[in-house]
Amino acid sequence: MPSLCILGCGNLGTHLVQALYHAGYPILQLYSRTVESATALSNLVGNAPFTTDLSQLTLSADLYICALKDSVLHEVLTKTPLKGKRIVHTAGSMPMSLLSEFTTDGGVFYPMQSFSKAKPVDFSVIPIFVEATNEEMKRILMEMAGRVSSSVNTLTSEERKQLHLAAVFASNFSNHMYAIAQEQLAKLGLPFEVLLPLIDETCSKIHTLPPVEAQTGPAVRYDLNVINEQKERIDNPLQKMIYELVSQSIHEKALQNEESHQ
Amino acid sequence: MPSLCILGCGNLGTHLVQALYHAGYPILQLYSRTVESATALSNLVGNAPFTTDLSQLTLSADLYICALKDSVLHEVLTKTPLKGKRIVHTAGSMPMSLLSEFTTDGGVFYPMQSFSKAKPVDFSVIPIFVEATNEEMKRILMEMAGRVSSSVNTLTSEERKQLHLAAVFASNFSNHMYAIAQEQLAKLGLPFEVLLPLIDETCSKIHTLPPVEAQTGPAVRYDLNVINEQKERIDNPLQKMIYELVSQSIHEKALQNEESHQ
Repeated sequence: MPSLCILGCGNLGTHLVQALYHAGYPILQLYSRTVESATALSNLVGNAPFTTDLSQLTLSADLYICALKDSVLHEVLTKTPLKGKRIVHTAGSMPMSLLSEFTTDGGVFYPMQSFSKAKPVDFSVIPIFVEATNEEMKRILMEMAGRVSSSVNTLTSEERKQLHLAAVFASNFSNHMYAIAQEQLAKLGLPFEVLLPLIDETCSKIHTLPPVEAQTGPAVRYDLNVINEQKERIDNPLQKMIYELVSQSIHEKALQNEESHQ
Repeated sequence: MPSLCILGCGNLGTHLVQALYHAGYPILQLYSRTVESATALSNLVGNAPFTTDLSQLTLSADLYICALKDSVLHEVLTKTPLKGKRIVHTAGSMPMSLLSEFTTDGGVFYPMQSFSKAKPVDFSVIPIFVEATNEEMKRILMEMAGRVSSSVNTLTSEERKQLHLAAVFASNFSNHMYAIAQEQLAKLGLPFEVLLPLIDETCSKIHTLPPVEAQTGPAVRYDLNVINEQKERIDNPLQKMIYELVSQSIHEKALQNEESHQ
């Protein structure tokens, strides 16, 4: 199995490196901007050697994984001696082509999940999206993905951007609906916690039912009375418009869904 | 403990009656429009007697619970011989006052959850919102709520409407974000399942972090490049507007959140 050097011991790196370590990949070295992060992760992966000096990176690894923030990815790479090495990054919304000035053996290894260092995660169910500059890199990355996860897919940089858009709706936007709901509950002096069972159930349903089938609420049939009455309760103009448009959109999808069943 | 007669053996009734039965409440009788539903529920609660004939309702119960669809609630009540009895309904968005033509001992017993007959549910964590016409009814309903749930609250009909609005955002609207995401994934030939780990994690985070603190994505800092690029990928005009408005709303809340921390 290829030996690894990982740049970045943050939220993603922490969990990815542990998964790779437990899958049997030799971790030759870790790099982090801070000693604290590097030490913490090193302790979890058999005391792997680490450095905070990019010029001290090992040149012996078979594969270099950059688990770095989008904004520093390119900059960090320019400071490394890794030209010509096999290099991948993990940034969902960055193109593979940013690696081309450093190597012809490039790739993207994108686990689609939101990570936090302190929160345990089951890597085996996280979908991984792979892209590679050639067949050899593809083989290495697909095998690596398959050793840590049961969900392995290939996508081009262009397709990955479309995937990222879907993730914005499914994760960022649904979270914002919770934020608006919390604001409304606060007006009643109720804590956000009272919504958690309902939120959990809504999230649980779509494991077995497509979202359009699971859809409920006044907007499905566009119950005008309820919708107008609810809209009037919203003071914030932006939220009022969101309420109107999302209701229309729910109704639009419900109608399409009905037609498709006929 | 008061003896009960429950009208409605649907999604909500099924779970509520079981919870009350296991809490020790005598179930004198069940009513359902269909023999199938009544039998199924009766079997789960010690073979409680049931009827599909409103004129055959027992007059001996201490409390009558109407777990019926909003749209048939009033109509069914007009066909019962329950004038002057203690009557509650379970409809979150219907006022308590609709009971006033039938009784002066009225109330609302509203468990805020989305129920499905076949899906088991832990009633003890479901928030119950109680309203009553007098102190005696309030006492009975608060005690009943407390025997099945650890989350008991009182709300007026007016406040309950505000609560319902919050539930529309938190449940109906977040579900619609999943539906839009599914549509976008379909363009890539990817199954909706690939988003489930991310959706679960987004839902899990807000158990310990307020939604505004948990918020991530390009809209937080209003990353204009990413936002414009993503907007261009959306063909549906309604979805494009939703993307724009929700992004603005996310950014608005992020700014307010920053100010409040200063």
